[in-house]
Amino acid sequence: MITLLTDFGDFYPGVMKGVILSINPNAKIVDITHNVEPQNVLQGAFLLYHSYRYFKSAIHVAVVDPGVGSKRRALAVFTKNHVFIAPDNGICYQSAAKDGIKKIFRIDESISSLVGELSYTFHGRDVFSPAAALISLQRYDFLEEIKEMEKLDIYDFKIGEKIKCKVVYVDKFGNLITNFPKEFVKAKGYICRGVKFPLVRTYSEVEVGETLALINSFNTLELSVRNGSAAELLGIKRGNVEIELEVFL
Amino acid sequence: MITLLTDFGDFYPGVMKGVILSINPNAKIVDITHNVEPQNVLQGAFLLYHSYRYFKSAIHVAVVDPGVGSKRRALAVFTKNHVFIAPDNGICYQSAAKDGIKKIFRIDESISSLVGELSYTFHGRDVFSPAAALISLQRYDFLEEIKEMEKLDIYDFKIGEKIKCKVVYVDKFGNLITNFPKEFVKAKGYICRGVKFPLVRTYSEVEVGETLALINSFNTLELSVRNGSAAELLGIKRGNVEIELEVFL
Amino acid sequence: MITLLTDFGDFYPGVMKGVILSINPNAKIVDITHNVEPQNVLQGAFLLYHSYRYFKSAIHVAVVDPGVGSKRRALAVFTKNHVFIAPDNGICYQSAAKDGIKKIFRIDESISSLVGELSYTFHGRDVFSPAAALISLQRYDFLEEIKEMEKLDIYDFKIGEKIKCKVVYVDKFGNLITNFPKEFVKAKGYICRGVKFPLVRTYSEVEVGETLALINSFNTLELSVRNGSAAELLGIKRGNVEIELEVFL
Repeated sequence: MITLLTDFGDFYPGVMKGVILSINPNAKIVDITHNVEPQNVLQGAFLLYHSYRYFKSAIHVAVVDPGVGSKRRALAVFTKNHVFIAPDNGICYQSAAKDGIKKIFRIDESISSLVGELSYTFHGRDVFSPAAALISLQRYDFLEEIKEMEKLDIYDFKIGEKIKCKVVYVDKFGNLITNFPKEFVKAKGYICRGVKFPLVRTYSEVEVGETLALINSFNTLELSVRNGSAAELLGIKRGNVEIELEVFL
Repeated sequence: MITLLTDFGDFYPGVMKGVILSINPNAKIVDITHNVEPQNVLQGAFLLYHSYRYFKSAIHVAVVDPGVGSKRRALAVFTKNHVFIAPDNGICYQSAAKDGIKKIFRIDESISSLVGELSYTFHGRDVFSPAAALISLQRYDFLEEIKEMEKLDIYDFKIGEKIKCKVVYVDKFGNLITNFPKEFVKAKGYICRGVKFPLVRTYSEVEVGETLALINSFNTLELSVRNGSAAELLGIKRGNVEIELEVFL
Repeated sequence: MITLLTDFGDFYPGVMKGVILSINPNAKIVDITHNVEPQNVLQGAFLLYHSYRYFKSAIHVAVVDPGVGSKRRALAVFTKNHVFIAPDNGICYQSAAKDGIKKIFRIDESISSLVGELSYTFHGRDVFSPAAALISLQRYDFLEEIKEMEKLDIYDFKIGEKIKCKVVYVDKFGNLITNFPKEFVKAKGYICRGVKFPLVRTYSEVEVGETLALINSFNTLELSVRNGSAAELLGIKRGNVEIELEVFL
């Protein structure tokens, strides 16, 4: 099983599937998302962390790669139950650490010869896809063990007079998914940009059109409007936006 | 075969697939759509009705679920050739009735323990996906038979001096798909919001940029602009909008 | 293996998959894209040309079909390694020619009886999907050999005082993908609509927010803004737009 998570949007993922299936025609490929916001590595890391574990065991290709074509390394990280294939920019660090890192490898980019010439712009096709396909066939000869990888903390927040955290993801409903974890949510509600969000358990506890805060399926704090869009209400249209929250008790 | 139809947009469906494939690694999963408009149960019902029958036999997971986390029931409806798994809000009623309802079951939400803790916001992951996976393995021990389910009429229209019907779906081309059935389309054309739509058989019968009405692949009346957008022309950007049609003969 | 490339957007492709899998339950279906711009045959042809070859051997269904319901023919083109199934409007010509055309067939539209009645608007469902499914089962009795097919040149550009070429595709990042081929890119940069785009090898060679031109993964010239959108900068929001490029040396 190979999963794909990228910021590529449309078309490019279809090409990746062609590459994978040409090397391993029996590969089972599952799309997680291809709509990570452009170059938003933090969002990619957050969404990977909250999807990989719903697979028992899989090869996860996660490509949000502002450094494509530069010297940044391409990684294959083997963990207890999974393999993560990604650029070395922190996108898979917290997922790998959570599952338990066993070995970190650098991918030899010359495997792009299986596809064609190595492009400067689309290593999703030329490097990461053939790497996933080869690993799915238990071929590892293109991997060189290394010691370290880039780290990235998806749960970087501060509690002081106000809570400083981030909206990491805005879903299709306009819900604002923050990186403020469940364990620290102890108030009766939160004020963000002057708007009150009373804490409830689920959307249907308030009237249509009213604001609410809840613990979402990511186990973080979410700001929402029932059958409406908190994203529009607060003018936060994409992720990786710092917010300040005031508590009310 | 398991199909998925939701209003979840991006990312969340990938998690559902992880859950399903962790329980039944051999499941074949097909996406119908994940872009039903938020909370638009009628649109979900309409699109399910016009897709399920193109599968010979399948388990259809249909989740547009404004009542998630409340007391609304989760259903598994067994019909002649299919199984429908959905919240009890009418979304699968007409599809199930059309195929011939054999038995209606309530899903025991405690199957969410296969996934983790039951969330208050994402039963697509916690309840409906494991239910589909278990049923695909012919495991039924979490089902309790019930007598009734919620009903919803996707063909609710009125013929009087004017025709009162609904735009139920706006496709990517900007075509306005109504719920006014083929059998009742007998005019030379229709006037909607002051604009004339002459009835033809297919788009290419009028000039580029001109309006037209036709019987579409849903077997309902559709208002369209050749190589243009009727949605923009009439200012109808989403489904579940009541319209009035005047006939011209 | 069957691939799908259409301008259908959402929902309709799910129905196509139902049709295919009802005829051949073992078919493996891969989406290339369903977001070709409405009726943009040139873009469909360009994207098909740059995806089909990453599959070793497949049946490619490519439907951008402004002439649906008219007299235009439905084709199945057998090439050295692939089969292309498409309306006869040039969309698969250059791909088929590149791989080496062996035989061109007209599809008998009466195969729609496998699905239901032949609609006037959705031959993706009624004709092209059953054709792909039957061919994947090596059933060919609905094919009639013909001599010719429509042609379309995706690399139609002119070099004079200025270069006249086309933006054929705008990707999710806002990169402007032109049809001006790598072999002719010899300048230090290009000026388009008054904006300078210096030629580099990859995005990370310029500062965030700066313009650049490069040879992309399509092996054509691309105009880009690092971590930004050239589409917004130049006001080019969709493909099939003629542009003029001035060279700087």
